[in-house]
Formats: sequence, C-alpha cells, structure tokens
Amino acid sequence: MSYELRGRDEADAAGRARTIAREQTVELPEGTYGAAIERDVVGRVESVSPRDQGRWCAVVSYPVEVAGDDIPQMLNLLFGNVSLLGGVRVVGVDWPAPPLAALPGPRHGIAGIRVLCGIREPRPLLCSVLKPLGASTRDLARRCHDLALGGCDLIKDDHSLVDPPTAPFAERVHRCQEAVALANARSGGSARYAPNVTGALEALDQRVELARDAGCAAVLISPLPQGLDAVRRVVDRHGVAVVAHPALAGAFFGPERGIAPEILLGDIFRLAGADAVIFPDAGGRFPVDRRTCDAIADHLRRPLGSYRAALPVAAGGIDVEQAVERVDRYGPDVGFLIGGSLYARRDLVETCRRLRRSLGATAGGG
Amino acid sequence: MSYELRGRDEADAAGRARTIAREQTVELPEGTYGAAIERDVVGRVESVSPRDQGRWCAVVSYPVEVAGDDIPQMLNLLFGNVSLLGGVRVVGVDWPAPPLAALPGPRHGIAGIRVLCGIREPRPLLCSVLKPLGASTRDLARRCHDLALGGCDLIKDDHSLVDPPTAPFAERVHRCQEAVALANARSGGSARYAPNVTGALEALDQRVELARDAGCAAVLISPLPQGLDAVRRVVDRHGVAVVAHPALAGAFFGPERGIAPEILLGDIFRLAGADAVIFPDAGGRFPVDRRTCDAIADHLRRPLGSYRAALPVAAGGIDVEQAVERVDRYGPDVGFLIGGSLYARRDLVETCRRLRRSLGATAGGG
Repeated sequence: MSYELRGRDEADAAGRARTIAREQTVELPEGTYGAAIERDVVGRVESVSPRDQGRWCAVVSYPVEVAGDDIPQMLNLLFGNVSLLGGVRVVGVDWPAPPLAALPGPRHGIAGIRVLCGIREPRPLLCSVLKPLGASTRDLARRCHDLALGGCDLIKDDHSLVDPPTAPFAERVHRCQEAVALANARSGGSARYAPNVTGALEALDQRVELARDAGCAAVLISPLPQGLDAVRRVVDRHGVAVVAHPALAGAFFGPERGIAPEILLGDIFRLAGADAVIFPDAGGRFPVDRRTCDAIADHLRRPLGSYRAALPVAAGGIDVEQAVERVDRYGPDVGFLIGGSLYARRDLVETCRRLRRSLGATAGGG
Repeated sequence: MSYELRGRDEADAAGRARTIAREQTVELPEGTYGAAIERDVVGRVESVSPRDQGRWCAVVSYPVEVAGDDIPQMLNLLFGNVSLLGGVRVVGVDWPAPPLAALPGPRHGIAGIRVLCGIREPRPLLCSVLKPLGASTRDLARRCHDLALGGCDLIKDDHSLVDPPTAPFAERVHRCQEAVALANARSGGSARYAPNVTGALEALDQRVELARDAGCAAVLISPLPQGLDAVRRVVDRHGVAVVAHPALAGAFFGPERGIAPEILLGDIFRLAGADAVIFPDAGGRFPVDRRTCDAIADHLRRPLGSYRAALPVAAGGIDVEQAVERVDRYGPDVGFLIGGSLYARRDLVETCRRLRRSLGATAGGG
C-alpha cells in the first residue's frame, strides 16, 4: 500500500510510516506484543521517497491474511484508523493476486453491458438520467421513452429518486420499463433502464427483485451511502448489472487526506462488483482534473487478476456539444452521461439522435 | 442544513449556496424544471454569513420529504453530490422533529448500558480492548478475564479482530464470554464483552446471532466500513447494544471539506442506532482538539426528539494516569477506553482495580 504523508525529513516520514504500519494492525506500542506478531502481523515499511512540498510517499506491505476476506475489513485495513491521523492519503494499492476471493468484481463488465444494450460496434455508450426529483411518474416515463427512442443506450434514475410520492418506486419502474420497451420496439434498439434501488437493506433487496421482475437488467446504486458490501451482495444474489454513483465519494478526495479517486472509484467500486462507475469528468461542473479522470478510467479497465473491466461513465455536466471531443481521450470503452444539457434542448429525441450518430461515427472510424 | 464554504464575497457565497441547494435536489440548471418543483423540491438558501478567511456559513433548508426515510438517502441529501464540489463542509443539521421515523436511534442508550453493566452510581465506564490481531484465542480470553476481574465494565474486540486463524470468531466469542462470566462470578461484577461482528452482511447477521446466543449483550461494529444502514438493521433485528468504532471517519474530517465530527460521530452514528460511540480524544495519539471532542460528546447526549442519549467513549491513546483528569470535562456519562497503556503495565488486574477505584471516587464525589 502506498501512502502520501507529511514529514520534516526522511526519518520523520519513515517514523510516520511505521506508526501507520502498527496502527493498521496491532494498534499497540512496540514492546507490548511478541516477536511472532511483529513478524506475521505488523505491516512492513518497504520504502520512503520524497515528493513535493514536505510530502513523502511511503510503501507499507501487509500480510495478506490481515486484509481479511470481506469489504469492511479491506476498507479498514486500507484507511480505517489511518483516516483519523490526518494528513495521510492512500495513493496506491498493489492488490494481491489472486485478488480477494470474496470480492466478486463486475459480473457483466464492459462486454456484458454492451451485450445487454445490443451494441456490437466499438463505440462509446450514450447514457442519460431521469430527473428531477418531484417530477411525476408520467413525465419521467415520457422522458425515458424519448431518450430511448433517440438512441440512449442506458437511462438511469437520478440518484435522489428513491420512492417519492410523485413517482413511487414500483409505479416508476413499471412505467419507465414499459416506455423503454415501447421505444425499443419502435427504434429496433436495445436501450436499458436502470432504476435507483438504493435504500434500507430490506428495501434494496425488494427493489432489485421488483426491477428484475419488471424486466430491468441493470440498477443504480450509490455504494457509499448504501454501504459497499451491499453492492457485493446484490451482485452475488441477484445478478443484475450494477451502475454505481459516486455520491459521498468526494469526502475522500482531500488534497492531503483520503483515498485517491482512482483507487476508490476505480479499484474499490470495481472489486465490490460495479459494472459501470459514474465519475465527474473534467470540464464539467465539478472541480476535477483530467489526469484524475484518466486514472479512474484506467483503473476501471486495466487488467486486474481475473476481474472483468468495468465501464467508466463520464458525467457531471457534460455538454451535448462537447461529448464527441472526449472520445479521443477515453476511446470507445466509455459511457457519456448527459443530463441537464440534453434537457435544456427543445427536442430530446432529435438531439439524442444527432449525438448518437456523432459518437458512433467518431469511434467507428477510430 | 449549515454548510461552511468558500466565497469571494457575500454574493459569491450565496451563489454557491444556491448551487448546493439545486445540486442536492433537482441537479438541473434553472429554467429546465417547473415552478412547482422549484417550490416543493429545491432547497432554499435561508442565510449567508461571514466566517474567517474567506469562508462563509450558508444555511439551506430542504423539504422534509426530500430527506426520504432511510439512511442512504439521508446521507445523500447531507453530503452526496456536495462532497464532489470540494471546499464544502457540513457544520450543522437541524434534524426535523419528529426525527426521521425509520431511524431507530439507540435501543439501550446510556441508561441501558449502565443496566447491562450493573452500574448504579453515576460514574464513568471503564472500557478496554482485546488485541492485538495475531494473538491466540487463549491469550485474548485470559486478557478478557483479567480486565473484567480488575473492574472493566465493557471489553471490546479490537476492530481489526474479525475472524483470523489465530482467534476464529466463534471460538473467540465463546472463550472470551466464558472468561468474562468467570471473572464476574469471582468479582461480583457485571462486565460485558462486545465482540467485533463487522463483516460481509451475511456474516454480520450470523455473528450477531452467535454472539447473542453465547450470552453477549453488546457487539462492536465499524459503521462506515460496514455501511451505516447495517447498524440500523442490527438494532432493528437483534436488539443487542451496539458499540460503534470510528474507522474511516477521519476521511470526512478535512479542514475545508467533509462533515463535522460531532455531526458524523455524534448525530448520525446515534440516529443509526449506536448505543456507544468510540471517538479519538484530545491529548492521545490522534490530532483532535478538545472543542471537537466536547462537541461529539454533547451531540451524543443532548436531547434530540425521542432518541435516547448515546454513550461517548473517549479513546485513542488515553494514558492510565490521565483518565481521571478527564472526568471533570465529560462528567459521569462517558466511557474511557484504555488499551495500550494498560497493556504496558505488568499487573493488568491490579492496574484496572486502581483505575476503577479512582474513576468511581472522582465521579461519585461530584
């Protein structure tokens, strides 16, 4: 595990790394536990190297047994008590190979999502969102129809749409799923609707079952508000494709504390079972740089044990006119989630059609 | 909801507050949704007032329906997308009254924990921890016995002790529970052992059941690695007292982003059902100030709707010799979790006895 931390000099930084190695394992001062535990349990500081402005990079290795075999303990080892030390940032993880056996990773992955959406050519997916909270089921279903008819591949609920009186979950899922089916019948396409199933654990299970029974092949979950292990359980139990929303993730993205975005959204969301991960793209309404976005996309798609690649879905204020430019950066294995700027156009169907054509042309020619 | 945020001037800060109010509800630009939604759904900026160094405090109110009725949506409204904006910190929440109906709050609370531990007089609880990871079941059970015999009220597993080969969960729970029972029989006390049940959701349920069947009245959970709603479900289903560990919480404690510690550990952990909440105390090995610790303790104990008060458990490197001094600050309704500095003493039983006597004397006389 690589940590970025503060240090007056190399010795100071090494001391802090050693503190981390103990804090994440025995949580005891030296001398209060035996040599076998020191050897078999306590993390080992492998290296300390300078970075900019009094920051250092420390590599600490842990016995693989300490990582346990579930998501809570993995998070705990990764950043549990260390989070409370302040000034420490997790910037790299060498996942053990074979990776943590109990973590399923994507069940569908990029290839599986392409199959679900009937996409044979190598092109980015056009994704959109049903909102706002407060709209009626009827309005949302009409939007869902128009987006699908225009050629959106994946249409998800807004993550704040749960079970509001204006668009109750069961009614919304049935109407939106019917709307997509109707649009698909008209267009010959295979758009998919992913309802937001995030909620209390009992409701989560019921919602996934209801969605699956209604014909939905994908669902939206916000893994951090929901609890990451609940994503793993949905994947294990229900087999639907999971689209993950980054709500709350920004808490971890401090400049000098937290977990690097490519590790949290890239590695951890993927290991937990997300088939597609929404992230705020550079140039939108969230302050994020290109390098970070490239790293997130890379971590979702790079070879990692036997795990399938997950689809990076760039989002967060992508303008209709700018989506196509982004294909050069991300290549065809990406989704573009376009919401507000589509809604601002008069003709949703026609705008989607034009966008889908240009996305297809760009990548198909590449 | 009160946010601390950056702003060039009042107008700029008000603009950011308005962005938050939309981001957390409709997530759409103005003009792309109707007047009814603006009125019924979008948050309203109530006030903006200056703080130090270009920071502002903005109060935004949301319709209570937007908060939903479960923990994931509550977290989402609290800090979901806002987390990704950067530079925004949640510093105050006026919880609706009656509070969120689906959140149970503590089932036992301070009074209930006192009953479980057989404590009639108004004095702080002496708490300790079984560690390190890597120790055998036999060693841990012996420590558990000695701590209980010495007068510890509550003895919890280390949060990194899950199900290691050196001390498997089922074996550990049975041996440690027997050890506590034996010590109680000898001392006439009523010490309680709280095993760490954190894990995959299926394992969590099995562990709680096993612990309860073995006679444990309390369990330890790390709510953030576990998922906060899983705490709520344990409280709803199993009725055991829940001791909450702050692992991962530090991710939220950035100086200019995140959620104030008294809201996360004080309000949210309590609403989710924690009966006791461990927090790093000032003057220990974690960088935290007194004001923050006082605020955490206050939020756990203050009147809040019909919720029971939860026990603040000060921890994180409290020295045996310094525990007593802290009683003046926290009063009798507090626990002191003392681990490493107890372990460093030769005679665990005698050190505990001395400490328990001095804690009892201090508070009993107050």
